[in-house]
Amino acid sequence: MPCHVLVSEVGPRDGLQSIKSVMPTDAKLRWISALAAAGLKEIEVGSFVPAKLLPQMADIREVVAHALTIAGLHVAVLAPNLRGCQAAFESGVHKVTLPVSVTNEHSMANIRKTTGEMIEEVRKIVALRDAEYPGIAIEAGVSVAFGCTIAGAVSDDQTIRMCAAMAECGVDEIGLSDTSGYANPTQVRRLFRRLQSEFGSKAGGAHFHNTRGQGLANVVAALETGVTTIDASQAGLGGCPYAPGATGNIVTEDLAFLLESMGYDTGIDIDSLVAARSILTEALPAEALYGHVQDAGLPKGFRYADGRSPGAVQPEGCLKGVAQ
Amino acid sequence: MPCHVLVSEVGPRDGLQSIKSVMPTDAKLRWISALAAAGLKEIEVGSFVPAKLLPQMADIREVVAHALTIAGLHVAVLAPNLRGCQAAFESGVHKVTLPVSVTNEHSMANIRKTTGEMIEEVRKIVALRDAEYPGIAIEAGVSVAFGCTIAGAVSDDQTIRMCAAMAECGVDEIGLSDTSGYANPTQVRRLFRRLQSEFGSKAGGAHFHNTRGQGLANVVAALETGVTTIDASQAGLGGCPYAPGATGNIVTEDLAFLLESMGYDTGIDIDSLVAARSILTEALPAEALYGHVQDAGLPKGFRYADGRSPGAVQPEGCLKGVAQ
Repeated sequence: MPCHVLVSEVGPRDGLQSIKSVMPTDAKLRWISALAAAGLKEIEVGSFVPAKLLPQMADIREVVAHALTIAGLHVAVLAPNLRGCQAAFESGVHKVTLPVSVTNEHSMANIRKTTGEMIEEVRKIVALRDAEYPGIAIEAGVSVAFGCTIAGAVSDDQTIRMCAAMAECGVDEIGLSDTSGYANPTQVRRLFRRLQSEFGSKAGGAHFHNTRGQGLANVVAALETGVTTIDASQAGLGGCPYAPGATGNIVTEDLAFLLESMGYDTGIDIDSLVAARSILTEALPAEALYGHVQDAGLPKGFRYADGRSPGAVQPEGCLKGVAQ
Repeated sequence: MPCHVLVSEVGPRDGLQSIKSVMPTDAKLRWISALAAAGLKEIEVGSFVPAKLLPQMADIREVVAHALTIAGLHVAVLAPNLRGCQAAFESGVHKVTLPVSVTNEHSMANIRKTTGEMIEEVRKIVALRDAEYPGIAIEAGVSVAFGCTIAGAVSDDQTIRMCAAMAECGVDEIGLSDTSGYANPTQVRRLFRRLQSEFGSKAGGAHFHNTRGQGLANVVAALETGVTTIDASQAGLGGCPYAPGATGNIVTEDLAFLLESMGYDTGIDIDSLVAARSILTEALPAEALYGHVQDAGLPKGFRYADGRSPGAVQPEGCLKGVAQ
């Protein structure tokens, strides 16, 4: 029996916020529909932040309203503070992720609050949810959990201390984020095992950036510990303006191929997912798109975890020289 | 105590044979020297094949002669038949890899021999080595071990049967090659464990192509089984003419970062390795170069497995939007 893994698509939030272009609302709605139609069951559709700071997210209410019309889709958003969460709760989303940095340096740069101030903010957010929106899930997305671009190395104890503060605040789920591609599989195994042993059912998913090409390697380690929710972004949309060529989140298409090949059922149809890239190509012509599966096609003889055959496999005639 | 992993650089062979450009001999020699100076201890410097078939390898004798002058470098080549092996042995290399396909279809397309004919050829090659060149190691590089672009799915039993034939022929080492990016980590774990349990000290290394972006994920699985030799190509040089955008072998720079981050000592200096890319940029201006670490730099606080600090870490100021 195949195990199930939830691929949580974060492209419309983490991808779109990190690029220069602003995606037209109409294209966003079509993209989200196409992603859901390809079998993605959870999509982080944007963030509730001031439009002045992030014009890419100015249409968040319209985007959420559209996403909520898609049957069966779990609609998630990011919100960095009480005000954003209030608006998110009112919009009727199913889940809100709070970006909580392990290091004070990253916390100040990212959300202009110390880690202590953010813990207090989370306490208020959970209280508001408990009082007025009991059906909405809250995830703490613990950022720079594996290392920080500003503070440098981050110890396991530092990360676990912030997770403990989040558990104590009453969030439902605690995920670990490798914000800038610092994580390695050894560390991923160690930290997720500890997260699970210390926080039980509150232990959440993995959010890896592919900055140094290590994203899927870290996924393998996370899967070993029993992680069943993994974030990814179609076409690895995002990148990093200070590191040309550095990709953003791990690529959903390549992740789906990894999981299905390993026998984890994701419910994703990779051909349909690849087809959805055309919306990005058209709406964001200036942005780099990443990934491999869209170019290489599915292997001959490929089967999904549930036994389905793909619609098409790309014939390969790659022999040149003497292959090994 | 860190474990050691041997990164076997195959760019001058597997990379150069798969691209359109022919690298000038002078640049090849400088490249190989730069790779060795960056700490790579084994380099597959080319293949002994007819220059008419592979003009990229026409200078193999000169390249081997140069590589043999580099102190401490283990010089490897590929040779597909007895005639090529005779020339390779005469050249004084330390190791010859034989490309042996699991499937008859791939064997015919790649070397114009059935698998049965190739097994007979290997027997003769080992006999020649035993009689006249006892100091030279022979590795069977078992191709399409995880799936075949022509025959499709390959069973574990098929692959192990070919490995058994190779062991019986008397090769020193049996490596498994994912020739076209068909492998997944579950399969990699299963096959390398079986290789080790059935062939003991003859069980060799892993040769992964990154066709579908799964290369480093497969490395994590191989490491778990105790594999200590992993092939890679600088800048992922190679690619596939039939799948634009599909990379060649896994990228040495990203692999070295993975291994060192996980605590495996490779002896590689990543800064020097990245610097060697400039030789490719200059000598092969038309070819795509891959990888992430060269753009992202090493993380702040990074330490090599042996405790060394890197020469430089790239400061990152990647905050844009609200990071997770």
